[in-house]
Amino acid sequence: MRERITRLIATPAWEIGVIAIITLNAVTLGLETSTTAMNAMGPLLLALDSVILVLFTLEILLRIYARRLAFFKDPWSLFDFIIVAIALVPASGPFSVLRALRILRVLRLISILPSLRRVIGGLIAALPGMGSIVVLLALVFYVFAVMATKLYGEAFPEWFGTIARSVYTLFQVMTLESWSMGIVRPVMEVYPNAWLFFVPFILCTSFTVLNLFIGIIVSAMQEEHEAEAESSRQAMQDEAELILAEVRALRQEVAELRRSGLKS
Amino acid sequence: MRERITRLIATPAWEIGVIAIITLNAVTLGLETSTTAMNAMGPLLLALDSVILVLFTLEILLRIYARRLAFFKDPWSLFDFIIVAIALVPASGPFSVLRALRILRVLRLISILPSLRRVIGGLIAALPGMGSIVVLLALVFYVFAVMATKLYGEAFPEWFGTIARSVYTLFQVMTLESWSMGIVRPVMEVYPNAWLFFVPFILCTSFTVLNLFIGIIVSAMQEEHEAEAESSRQAMQDEAELILAEVRALRQEVAELRRSGLKS
Amino acid sequence: MRERITRLIATPAWEIGVIAIITLNAVTLGLETSTTAMNAMGPLLLALDSVILVLFTLEILLRIYARRLAFFKDPWSLFDFIIVAIALVPASGPFSVLRALRILRVLRLISILPSLRRVIGGLIAALPGMGSIVVLLALVFYVFAVMATKLYGEAFPEWFGTIARSVYTLFQVMTLESWSMGIVRPVMEVYPNAWLFFVPFILCTSFTVLNLFIGIIVSAMQEEHEAEAESSRQAMQDEAELILAEVRALRQEVAELRRSGLKS
Amino acid sequence: MRERITRLIATPAWEIGVIAIITLNAVTLGLETSTTAMNAMGPLLLALDSVILVLFTLEILLRIYARRLAFFKDPWSLFDFIIVAIALVPASGPFSVLRALRILRVLRLISILPSLRRVIGGLIAALPGMGSIVVLLALVFYVFAVMATKLYGEAFPEWFGTIARSVYTLFQVMTLESWSMGIVRPVMEVYPNAWLFFVPFILCTSFTVLNLFIGIIVSAMQEEHEAEAESSRQAMQDEAELILAEVRALRQEVAELRRSGLKS
Repeated sequence: MRERITRLIATPAWEIGVIAIITLNAVTLGLETSTTAMNAMGPLLLALDSVILVLFTLEILLRIYARRLAFFKDPWSLFDFIIVAIALVPASGPFSVLRALRILRVLRLISILPSLRRVIGGLIAALPGMGSIVVLLALVFYVFAVMATKLYGEAFPEWFGTIARSVYTLFQVMTLESWSMGIVRPVMEVYPNAWLFFVPFILCTSFTVLNLFIGIIVSAMQEEHEAEAESSRQAMQDEAELILAEVRALRQEVAELRRSGLKS
Repeated sequence: MRERITRLIATPAWEIGVIAIITLNAVTLGLETSTTAMNAMGPLLLALDSVILVLFTLEILLRIYARRLAFFKDPWSLFDFIIVAIALVPASGPFSVLRALRILRVLRLISILPSLRRVIGGLIAALPGMGSIVVLLALVFYVFAVMATKLYGEAFPEWFGTIARSVYTLFQVMTLESWSMGIVRPVMEVYPNAWLFFVPFILCTSFTVLNLFIGIIVSAMQEEHEAEAESSRQAMQDEAELILAEVRALRQEVAELRRSGLKS
Repeated sequence: MRERITRLIATPAWEIGVIAIITLNAVTLGLETSTTAMNAMGPLLLALDSVILVLFTLEILLRIYARRLAFFKDPWSLFDFIIVAIALVPASGPFSVLRALRILRVLRLISILPSLRRVIGGLIAALPGMGSIVVLLALVFYVFAVMATKLYGEAFPEWFGTIARSVYTLFQVMTLESWSMGIVRPVMEVYPNAWLFFVPFILCTSFTVLNLFIGIIVSAMQEEHEAEAESSRQAMQDEAELILAEVRALRQEVAELRRSGLKS
Repeated sequence: MRERITRLIATPAWEIGVIAIITLNAVTLGLETSTTAMNAMGPLLLALDSVILVLFTLEILLRIYARRLAFFKDPWSLFDFIIVAIALVPASGPFSVLRALRILRVLRLISILPSLRRVIGGLIAALPGMGSIVVLLALVFYVFAVMATKLYGEAFPEWFGTIARSVYTLFQVMTLESWSMGIVRPVMEVYPNAWLFFVPFILCTSFTVLNLFIGIIVSAMQEEHEAEAESSRQAMQDEAELILAEVRALRQEVAELRRSGLKS
C-alpha cells in the first residue's frame, strides 16, 4: 500500500495535477479580491477554495503517510506543511489576518517546480556568507537608533520616539527615500548639526551594504571559477601524467638496454 | 530582376539612403510636436511624413520581393515590417494613440546599424538566464499584491483597491520611490503593523533583483573567461604535445638502439 | 603579577564575561530611552550603567597594566580606550551630547568578536585603493558647491546660501533624493537653464561613484584570484618539476650507459 | 633661453609653487562666496584673485613658449589653457555667468597631480566601450520623449510640453526620483493607462543602464585578468621549454650513443 502511494506521488501526472490545482487556487484567490467577481460567483469561489484546501490537506497527508519521518526532514516538505497548516487555522477573531495568508499557498509552486527551487536554493546559499556583515549592520542600526532616540526623540516623537520608530526611520534613510527633504532638513531646523549624525550614517550603511553585495558577487564568481579552474587543472595534470608515463616507460627501456648491454 | 534588386538592396549607398531617410523622419516627427514649427510649415512636415512612409513601404516591399519567405524568418526584418505596418493602420477613432507610435519608425536605426544591433543582441542574450528568477519575482509580486489588496484595499482603495493597483503600488515600493513617506507611513497610521508587510517585501525583492543582476554579471564574465581559459588550455596542450612528441621520438630511437645493440 | 593578569585577560571565560557585560549594557542603554522602563526602574538602570562603566574602566586599566605601551599600539585597544574615555567625560553643559554617545560602548562588541573584527578589517582594507577617487570627488564637490553658491545662493539661501549648505544640497542631489521635484524644478522656475548645472553634476558624480565601486569590486576579486592563480601555478610547477626530475634521472642513466658502453 | 625655461618648468619646486597657488586660489574663491569675508577683506580677495590670474597666464605663456606646438597637442595642456582662457574673458553683460566658472581653475589640480590624472584617464578609458549603448540610450530617450510630448504634452505642459521638457522629465523618471507619486500617478488620473508607457520605460532604461555598468565592470576585470593570465602562461611556457630542452639534450646524447654503439 505505502509503496504504491509513494510511486503514485512521484508520477509526472500527479505533479501536473498538483500544479494545476495550485494555479487554479491562485486564480480563485485572486478573484476573491474583486467585488464584481464575488457578487457574480462568490459562493462558487469559496466552495472551490474549500475543495482545494481539502485536496491540499489530503495530498500532504498522503505524503506524510508515504515518507513518514523523512517528510519532516525535507525543508521543502516542511514548507508545504506549514503553508497548508496556516490555511487550516480557523481564521476568525484575532487570527483574521490569517485569511490574507491563504494566498501563500501559491508559493507551493516554488517547492514543486525544480527551476524555482534551484533559484531559491541559490539565494539561500548566498546567506551564510553574509552572516557577519548582517550582524555588523544590526549593531550599527541599534547604536544609531539608540542615539537618534536620545537626541531627536523628544522633538520628533513620530520619527524617533522609540527605538523601534528610530530603526524604521533609519531604515528609510538607508534606502535614501526622502531622507533629506522628508527627514533631515526638518530635523536640522531644530538641531542644525543633525547632518553630522545622518550623513555619516548614510555613508556607513551604504558602504557596508555595498560590501555585502560585493561579497556575494565575489563568492558567486569564485564558485564558477573554482569549478572551471579545477577542470583546467585536471586537464593539465592529465597531460603531465601522460608525459610522465612516457618518460618512465623510456627509462625502463634504457634500464633494460643497459642491463642487456652489460650482459653482452 | 530579383537578383538585381537583391544586389541593389545590399549596396552601401542604399543603406546610407535608408539611414538618411530615417534620420530625416526623426527630425520631422520631432518638429511635429512643436506648435511653432507646425504653424510655420505644418503642411510641409505632414507631406514629408507621408512621402517617407511611402518610401518605407516601398523599401519593405522590395525586400519582401527579394527575399520572399526568408524575409519573415529574420527577426530584424519582422521588426521593420511591424513598425511600418503600425504606421499604415488608419490612426483615427480608437486607434488615435497609434499616431504617437509613428515615432517608433526611428527605431529602425537599430535594425540597420550593426553596432546597435549587436548591443540589442547582447541584451536579449542576457534574458534567458533570467527566466526562473523573473518567474519567481512575478510569483512574489502576485502573492504580495493579493495580500495587500485583502489587507489594505478597503482603507486605501486608491493604492490597493484592486490587484492591478496593488501590483503598481508594490512596483513603486520596490523602486523605493516615496515608499515610506508616501505609502507606508500613511498606511501605518491605520494599520500600525504594516511595516511587517512592507519591510520584508522590500528586503525580498531587493535581494531577488540583486541576485538577478549578479547572475547577469557572473554569466557575462564567465563567457569572457571561458574563451580566454580555452585559449590558455590550448596553448598548454600544444606545449605538452610538443614534449610528448619529442619523448616518443626519443623512445623510438632508444628502441632502435636496443635492437641494433642486440644485433651487434 | 603582570603575567598572571595577562593570562587571566586571555582566558575565554574573561572574554565571555566582557561580552556579557557589553550586551547587558546594550540592553540597559536601550531601556533608558523608554519612559515606561525609566519610570518603573530608572534608578536601577542608572546604577547598573555606572557599575558597568566602572567594570569597563577596570578592564581597560588591567589591559594597560598588562600590555603597557603595546596597548596603545594596537588600534583595537585604542578604539576600546577612546570609547570608555568618552563615557568618563562629565556629560553636562556643552558636553551633554556625549550622554548619547555612551551607546558607542556597544561597538566594543566589534573589537571583541573576531568575525566582526575581520569584516571591519576588510572594509578598512578597501579604503586606501579609494584614495585618489575620493580626493577627486571632494574636488568636484567643492567646485560645484562654489559655483552653486555663486549662481543660486541669492535666490535660494536655504539650499545654496553658503558653501556648506551647497555641499549638503549637492550631496542630497547625488543620492538622487528629491533632486528634481524638490530642488531642480523650483530652481528652474527662476533660472530656466539650471538643468545645465545639475544634470551634468549627477552624471559626473554617479559615474565617479560607480567607478569607485567597480574599483573596489575588481580589487576584491583580484585578491581572491591571485591566491587561486598562485596555487594553480604551484600545482603546475610541481608537475613540471616531477617530469624534469624524471628526465634528468634518465639522462644520467643514458650518460652512464654511454660511459659503460664505451668501456666495453 | 628656451631650454632653461623648459628645465625650470619641470623642477619639483615649480610644481609645488603652482599647486600652492591653485590651493590659495581655491580658498580665496571660496571666501568670495561669504558676505562676512567679503565685508572684512573683499578688496584683498579680489586683488589676490587678479594677481593669481596674472600668474596663471604667465605660467601658461611660459609653457607655450617652451613647448610651442607640442603644448597644444597635449590634452592636459589644452585643459589648462581653456580654463585660464575662460577667466580672461571679460565677465560682464551676457557673460556674467562666466564669473562663476572661475572656480574651474581649481580643476587644474587634476592636471598637475599625477594620481588624479590617472583616475581621470581611467574614467575616460572606460568611455569608448560605452559608445553604442549610449547611442542606444539616446535613441530610446528621443523616441519616448516624442511619444510623451504627443500623448501627455497638452494635459501636462509643465512636464511634457516640449521635447526638451519630456527628456528632462524622463531623465527624472529614469533616476526613479518621485516617478510615481510625483509624475505617473497625476498623469494616470487623466490617462489611466499611462503606466503602460512609464513602467516599460523604467524597465527598458534600467536594464540598459545596468548593462552599461556590467560592460564597464567586465572590461575592467578582463584587463586585470589578461595581464595575469599572460604572466601565468609565460611561467608555464618557461617550464615547458625547460623540459623540452632537457629532452632534446637527452635525445642528442642517445643519438651519439647510437652512433658510437654502431661504430664499436
